[in-house]
Amino acid sequence: MKFKKILVVGIQKPQLDNFTWKSLSSLTNKIVLLSPDSRDIFKELKDSEALLVYFNKADKEMIDGAPNLKYIGALATGVGKIDIKYASKKGVVVTNIPGYSTESVAELVFGVLLENSREISRAKTESKKGNRSELGFSAREIKGKTFGVLGLGRIGARVAELAQAFEANVIYWSKTRKKSYEKRGVKYSSMNDLLKKSDIISIHFSLNDRTNNILNKSKVKQIKKGAIVINTAPMELIDYEALKNRIKSGNITFIFDHTDLGDITEKRLKELQRYKNCITYPAIGYISQEARVNKQKIFVDNIKSFLKGKPTNTVE
Amino acid sequence: MKFKKILVVGIQKPQLDNFTWKSLSSLTNKIVLLSPDSRDIFKELKDSEALLVYFNKADKEMIDGAPNLKYIGALATGVGKIDIKYASKKGVVVTNIPGYSTESVAELVFGVLLENSREISRAKTESKKGNRSELGFSAREIKGKTFGVLGLGRIGARVAELAQAFEANVIYWSKTRKKSYEKRGVKYSSMNDLLKKSDIISIHFSLNDRTNNILNKSKVKQIKKGAIVINTAPMELIDYEALKNRIKSGNITFIFDHTDLGDITEKRLKELQRYKNCITYPAIGYISQEARVNKQKIFVDNIKSFLKGKPTNTVE
Repeated sequence: MKFKKILVVGIQKPQLDNFTWKSLSSLTNKIVLLSPDSRDIFKELKDSEALLVYFNKADKEMIDGAPNLKYIGALATGVGKIDIKYASKKGVVVTNIPGYSTESVAELVFGVLLENSREISRAKTESKKGNRSELGFSAREIKGKTFGVLGLGRIGARVAELAQAFEANVIYWSKTRKKSYEKRGVKYSSMNDLLKKSDIISIHFSLNDRTNNILNKSKVKQIKKGAIVINTAPMELIDYEALKNRIKSGNITFIFDHTDLGDITEKRLKELQRYKNCITYPAIGYISQEARVNKQKIFVDNIKSFLKGKPTNTVE
Repeated sequence: MKFKKILVVGIQKPQLDNFTWKSLSSLTNKIVLLSPDSRDIFKELKDSEALLVYFNKADKEMIDGAPNLKYIGALATGVGKIDIKYASKKGVVVTNIPGYSTESVAELVFGVLLENSREISRAKTESKKGNRSELGFSAREIKGKTFGVLGLGRIGARVAELAQAFEANVIYWSKTRKKSYEKRGVKYSSMNDLLKKSDIISIHFSLNDRTNNILNKSKVKQIKKGAIVINTAPMELIDYEALKNRIKSGNITFIFDHTDLGDITEKRLKELQRYKNCITYPAIGYISQEARVNKQKIFVDNIKSFLKGKPTNTVE
């Protein structure tokens, strides 16, 4: 089985390896690439059976403009700009790519944590400058610390596992209890207790209406003094003013990457970066070679599975 | 039971917490502190029942100079400068402090590895400078890599465990087979195979006559192209010229800390630091607060156990 035509909107050539483009071509008689602001989108949609997008939209108007459409594939985990309900109503299958960067992000959490707890960047720089002494470097172990995971989804659960391997006491709070992890010693805790007790906190909520500002003023106040807080999730989860005040007071260390900056404007980022106890990174969590390969493989496999009549990673 | 007199040579006041000095004082009627080059050592040895040292010597002459000596305690793992055979002959118990920094060093191995594989220092610096993009950062995961551990002692074994938690394929070579680790999936390999196959190599031999230059010219040549080699053990384990040539050729990444520089003089260190693919650190592996606390506790506990007639951590 092949599609008669695939329309690709918003995915640029270099985003996928040649190998992946070849695979895609083998799954269709015709493939057309357009940018999201192209005037030709509606013209090309008319006879398209599949629409592939990145983070860009696939709304009601576009779905209506494609009477032969059977499949929308997103090259992303988030599908916020795809009208899933309408697609479903029209019998169009929507797929996404969950979990492709789980390991990559989980490893980075420990990378930035160890950088901080062992002063790795400073040690590297000072060694290069000729400092041969370890005197004056501080170091804390992960072992024996209380490690709180907020949100025990794919990434949170993997972070919890790794924290257990480092022999931390791992506690979690998540929307739903995860008994399978509890059996393995990851203890459930109320969010308040987690914030009060954890020496290290790693945030892994996905952003939605329910989690927006979930770490509100009163929650942020409860974070243990001296805690290291790592956020590889969107900053909209956290009340900005409350966070800034805690950072300003100097009694927490806050580490985050720039993924999904959203409301955190350049101004806010600069504001936080003024404080030594706020450490920032570009969004390097999900960019590993392995994640890139996973992502492309799942992207193609989703289409293959659909063509075989057994769609995988469908979003409803 | 108490000692009549403890002589401390080469351990300075700030090396131990006040709490530890108090504990030591409670275990003896008299305690005297001297530097290793003090002229009073032999005078003070005459009536000492216990001698406490750091890395400094406790040789035949000193043992002979202390007719009442029952105990030599080293505030270190290495006891190369203590004449253990002669002490044993004279009925003097010698103790050391094994394993106090196992976790601290093992965690650091993953800290410096992740720093390298995820470009953490550069990402931190660039973010501070205003770079908001992850483009141009490279990243490889530990998961799925072949991870070779040379020397499966305390630290090597802990590194192997952590590498397994990161889902690497862990192989090892050690003087003796360690079946208990093999049962847990750490595979034994010949040293040649390990060097040829491993994407990541972590070196954990202790230095002695048998291991000096163990990674000789021919061994160094066999290290896989593109491998990351981490050495938190003494540099005397590795043939310097061969290593320099591999680093110079650019096809391995070599990461080491300055502990036990030994023959690696300042000149050599500077020589290696010229290469971007050689990353150096001061000896920050063993300095965690937790290691410091462990070390002092074991140091005191060794004395207590001896006084109770059940010596622990004896070296023979």
